[in-house]
Amino acid sequence: MSKIRIGIVGYGNIGRGVEKAVVAARDMELRAVFTRRDPGKLKLAWSEAPVLPVSEAVNMTDNIDVMLLCGGSATDLAVQGPQFAAAFNTVDSFDTHAKIPEYLAAIDAVAKNTTAIISSGWDPGLFSMMRVIFEAALPDGACYTFWGKGVSQGHSDAIRRISGVRNAIQYTVPIDSAVDAVRSGVMPELDARQKHIRECYVVAQPDADKAVIEATIKNMPHYFAQYDTTVTFIEEGEFLSCHSKMPHGGMVLRSGATGENKQSIEFSLKLDSNPEFTGSVMVAYARAAYRMASEGIFGAKTVFDVPVAYLAEKDRSTLIKELM
Amino acid sequence: MSKIRIGIVGYGNIGRGVEKAVVAARDMELRAVFTRRDPGKLKLAWSEAPVLPVSEAVNMTDNIDVMLLCGGSATDLAVQGPQFAAAFNTVDSFDTHAKIPEYLAAIDAVAKNTTAIISSGWDPGLFSMMRVIFEAALPDGACYTFWGKGVSQGHSDAIRRISGVRNAIQYTVPIDSAVDAVRSGVMPELDARQKHIRECYVVAQPDADKAVIEATIKNMPHYFAQYDTTVTFIEEGEFLSCHSKMPHGGMVLRSGATGENKQSIEFSLKLDSNPEFTGSVMVAYARAAYRMASEGIFGAKTVFDVPVAYLAEKDRSTLIKELM
Repeated sequence: MSKIRIGIVGYGNIGRGVEKAVVAARDMELRAVFTRRDPGKLKLAWSEAPVLPVSEAVNMTDNIDVMLLCGGSATDLAVQGPQFAAAFNTVDSFDTHAKIPEYLAAIDAVAKNTTAIISSGWDPGLFSMMRVIFEAALPDGACYTFWGKGVSQGHSDAIRRISGVRNAIQYTVPIDSAVDAVRSGVMPELDARQKHIRECYVVAQPDADKAVIEATIKNMPHYFAQYDTTVTFIEEGEFLSCHSKMPHGGMVLRSGATGENKQSIEFSLKLDSNPEFTGSVMVAYARAAYRMASEGIFGAKTVFDVPVAYLAEKDRSTLIKELM
Repeated sequence: MSKIRIGIVGYGNIGRGVEKAVVAARDMELRAVFTRRDPGKLKLAWSEAPVLPVSEAVNMTDNIDVMLLCGGSATDLAVQGPQFAAAFNTVDSFDTHAKIPEYLAAIDAVAKNTTAIISSGWDPGLFSMMRVIFEAALPDGACYTFWGKGVSQGHSDAIRRISGVRNAIQYTVPIDSAVDAVRSGVMPELDARQKHIRECYVVAQPDADKAVIEATIKNMPHYFAQYDTTVTFIEEGEFLSCHSKMPHGGMVLRSGATGENKQSIEFSLKLDSNPEFTGSVMVAYARAAYRMASEGIFGAKTVFDVPVAYLAEKDRSTLIKELM
């Protein structure tokens, strides 16, 4: 059987995670990585695939079955998503929740002969699917999403922008008592502060005023002000040895009832590498995009629209025999 | 908007669970319950829907959008499944795992202008879906399913057939240390005895030899011999007050890795009422069957074939806005 030919656009953490997953997939081959950087200076982590300038992608429509878009949601995907979906089957992990409807519409307008699966990581992505399944299976109930313990890239960046900060990382940590309350079935109302704490590890510049840094972090609107935040100053050495991974995870819980009988459903992830798992999920959706396109199911799709049989390397009858 | 018109075939535990879920669903109405018993003697638990002999169903094709088949897998569904799927959109919870491919083929042969979703409870059903999603998202890993703590109807029946037994119930209980080993990521090989214990509560006849009953249970091939089994004799009063519910649950876990990074995924259910949750899931799939049929997507389908958007009462754009 011929392999699904994959292209990767953008080679940051997610791009590397996708590369690793494509290399591991028996039914896929990585045809090229496209970058806006100087291709000659980009060394791939997991393969010997050609590295090409992103401008050359347009000439590769006959050589690539699915293009995995690994740029950031904030600026890259808003432009690249519609651009690539017009010519390629695509998969991305667009994660600016509030802008997903608009992004979906922009993609759908151009994906006339292609299949474009958007927002396919784990949140949005698998967590979104679970929220839909859980609500359908248990309509009388309440759904909760907790994230962590894991690194929030956006919050870490926000700390690093503070004057006097040399390096920083922020972990989002779910509050056990809140999780327990949800599990107990009492369906608590929980605000942001009651669900998560934010743990910050900061390497300060030698001359920096740590008290000022700490106060700046804790009072930062949107990012930290509405949470209980801890700030721990550490040395560069400890930072590099203990905080260089990108673990993450989280859980979706729904507790509810059928009449007087309590019922609860739970889905959780525990990830040593967030970008590698995200990449792995995107690769499963690349398989789905390829198959849906082969069947003429075109347009912008989400994880809500893709039957899970399309994700699997095994064919449907094997799935039914082995996993049903 | 007109409501989805539901029929129920078979009124045991699952039938009652389905009835309760249909009554609670705003977009559905229960048109009739079909029974092989004397309809005049059947009092419904949750509605005033008409109770009709199963032979009358054939005249109701214009009045019922989806027929929920609530008979047992062993004898009822093998006959009723193909019979009803020829004339109605159907949903069932056929759960004889080994016979699912054969059952699917029999249904598919007749469901030419109908949509028939089989094996749609939680195992098979939601658990099956999770096994597929987990394997696709984390190909390098191992998947484990644990059941319980919960009542196994088949094992309880097997005990009740022993001479000298007045009443009995059997709980399947996952072994914590096995679950912990899976969670730790060591990917243990676990045989039946290492995964679950079987707890039996038995009311003996006054003159029965309890030692014989206990030995008969513990040595029963297929059901108990390959497990560690506990047998506790109790009085009828305690049996009725403490063991009359049908709790169940379980979990699907996959632990694996992307290269050197450990990753794990977990899905779990904790159910006070197994048949009511099963009924609730079936009702969500009834919505899907109705919609797929409306779009001309006919034939025998499984949970692997149904996009989750079809399960939800909310429309796709609302799901994308609220749950993505």
